[in-house]
Amino acid sequence: MKPASLENFKNLREENMVAMRAAQEKGIKVIGFYCTYCPREIIMTAGAIPVGLCGTRETPIAAAERDLPRNLCPLVKSSYGFAITEQCPFFLISDLIIGETTCDGKKKMFELLQDKGMKPVYVMHLPQVPDQSASHRLWYEELQRLKEYLEMTLSVEITDDALREAMQVINEESKALQRLFDLNKAKPALISGVDLMNVSFQIGFQADRRSGIDLLNSLADEIEEKAREGYTVGDLSTLRILLTGTPVGVGSEKVITLVEECGGLVVAMENCGGYKTVELRTDIDAHPDPLYLLAEKYMKIPCSVMTPNHRRLELLKRMIHDFQIDGVIDLTWQACHTYNIESYFVSKLVKDELGLPFLHLETDYSQSDLETLRVRIEAFLEMI
Amino acid sequence: MKPASLENFKNLREENMVAMRAAQEKGIKVIGFYCTYCPREIIMTAGAIPVGLCGTRETPIAAAERDLPRNLCPLVKSSYGFAITEQCPFFLISDLIIGETTCDGKKKMFELLQDKGMKPVYVMHLPQVPDQSASHRLWYEELQRLKEYLEMTLSVEITDDALREAMQVINEESKALQRLFDLNKAKPALISGVDLMNVSFQIGFQADRRSGIDLLNSLADEIEEKAREGYTVGDLSTLRILLTGTPVGVGSEKVITLVEECGGLVVAMENCGGYKTVELRTDIDAHPDPLYLLAEKYMKIPCSVMTPNHRRLELLKRMIHDFQIDGVIDLTWQACHTYNIESYFVSKLVKDELGLPFLHLETDYSQSDLETLRVRIEAFLEMI
Repeated sequence: MKPASLENFKNLREENMVAMRAAQEKGIKVIGFYCTYCPREIIMTAGAIPVGLCGTRETPIAAAERDLPRNLCPLVKSSYGFAITEQCPFFLISDLIIGETTCDGKKKMFELLQDKGMKPVYVMHLPQVPDQSASHRLWYEELQRLKEYLEMTLSVEITDDALREAMQVINEESKALQRLFDLNKAKPALISGVDLMNVSFQIGFQADRRSGIDLLNSLADEIEEKAREGYTVGDLSTLRILLTGTPVGVGSEKVITLVEECGGLVVAMENCGGYKTVELRTDIDAHPDPLYLLAEKYMKIPCSVMTPNHRRLELLKRMIHDFQIDGVIDLTWQACHTYNIESYFVSKLVKDELGLPFLHLETDYSQSDLETLRVRIEAFLEMI
Repeated sequence: MKPASLENFKNLREENMVAMRAAQEKGIKVIGFYCTYCPREIIMTAGAIPVGLCGTRETPIAAAERDLPRNLCPLVKSSYGFAITEQCPFFLISDLIIGETTCDGKKKMFELLQDKGMKPVYVMHLPQVPDQSASHRLWYEELQRLKEYLEMTLSVEITDDALREAMQVINEESKALQRLFDLNKAKPALISGVDLMNVSFQIGFQADRRSGIDLLNSLADEIEEKAREGYTVGDLSTLRILLTGTPVGVGSEKVITLVEECGGLVVAMENCGGYKTVELRTDIDAHPDPLYLLAEKYMKIPCSVMTPNHRRLELLKRMIHDFQIDGVIDLTWQACHTYNIESYFVSKLVKDELGLPFLHLETDYSQSDLETLRVRIEAFLEMI
């Protein structure tokens, strides 16, 4: 029987909607953002609630295509579509939107969102080369600019001490998430990919981070407890799949679902909502300036928008070892150029260097290729 | 009868191939680059010959698709394909390749090119927000980094005086190109779009810039002379079309050809090889540091990779007025997200603000949609 604590995450999104509305009535602002590069610590220190708006559902894509090209990635179209159709309650209650110049699609989409004038849209300028001192300086200045913008817009003061406190909270959250992901280092695994994805997706809407951390730790506690009593997900023969590539969330989880319907198990996800960021902590004592530490932390996110993106390959290699992976699926949303091209290097690592089975899937949010995907995934699992 | 001087440009590419080979035998290096953001002045001051390698032909795309995703822009695939198939003599003789993190496709493609190890590939980090002091600083540092890299790699010293001299030459070249483009401010026009594109494309391969400037000026002289004798291209009723959007060159000129086959005239091109850069000069006395001036100049290129890209809209508005434009065609290479999305704003300017006919075309380098394009262009011209 599944861990009972999973139930706590089921309606988290709806519960948080209520919590955010209540907070807003007390004058607390809600700030929507679209990417893990957005430094949530600064938003929290400004006394506001950060909430991820990154679109993971197909519903509003048709509306988005009235303004945006069809051959754009579904994530960008979904995010924009949710905004302009006012279908996303979290966009609707957001007092302010923060965008980031991550990929070409998002970067230009934010211009349209600004043009629509529905909400104030503030865009952070992300450098593209991670290991360059000029990039760090530019990004540091961007964090400073955001801090000053929020201080001015929300009439607050963001102190270093308060920033350090928020950094501590986010550290705890990452630690709790990593603890949950790391349960699957056990063989057989302890949590399914679908459940993992669900938990990490739902927690993204958490208004009160500390209670979110408690929820994550309670779930991990319960699973560990059950594991001591012999609980596993799958058995020793279950194929252990690592999912990497573009971000996945509720509504865009079809590949995870298919793998698990076909008898495999997505024991680890390197994607955005997955392991990609959970190891990133700020060592609060390492530098007197918390913004410096934050800039350093966020520039370490191994996203394919960075060039070169060696950190992703290092992380994948480590994860493949630690999670005892049998095969890797690299997922690309259609027209996501950076992940699509970077798949060349992921394939080289997995197939050529590590000699493991590798499957690159390119799809979108529609259900039209579900059976084709199922056949390909089945064949992949059989091949392992 | 067409101006005789046009003949001078016909075999320029081949002649320059011979000239570059001869120069190389004397120890002069050839440096291939892919984008107008590449500061040619620095390469010239390093005693090397800069040559644009940006792919405009379909031939090598199939080979490129063995490594790159199919749904990538044809320009990136063509550039990469030419490199790996060794079909481009200019790539072959290049001693060094300079890339720039302009769009997602190019940025990641350069990683593959580096991985192939055929040539040393040096990548410049381009910021994405043009009017930000942090961007200027980062870009200035990138020019400095390139200067130091070339000094070290080519064992040369790049002095400020020599840089200023190269800047003067490139200023002259831009002036000569602009003079040619500006001939079409006359009504009726004085040079066809196909000829304009050809001249500006061919001149890009010029090893000796000063003789290239002479060629451009001789052509303009001759056309002005002929114009005094009543020479025109088309007549007062010929529809005057402005072409904007993605770069066009020999091999990817199908839209220009079609417009002129259908009886219209592309009197002005705002694209990369067109008017986009010809007004950009460096006022050499404006700052003691030539690199500072160069950084400032190149950041002003109104490319859609920048966000926001107001300068393009300002330029388009001015060009539509100055060239007495009857209709605007906005060309997007398939999967070029930045130009494709930015078309939203071009359409708003042309249709809503200026009340002019507007046509957005999305295509690639293949000839498969030639008849569909012809029908759409014909209908567009009829509608004007």
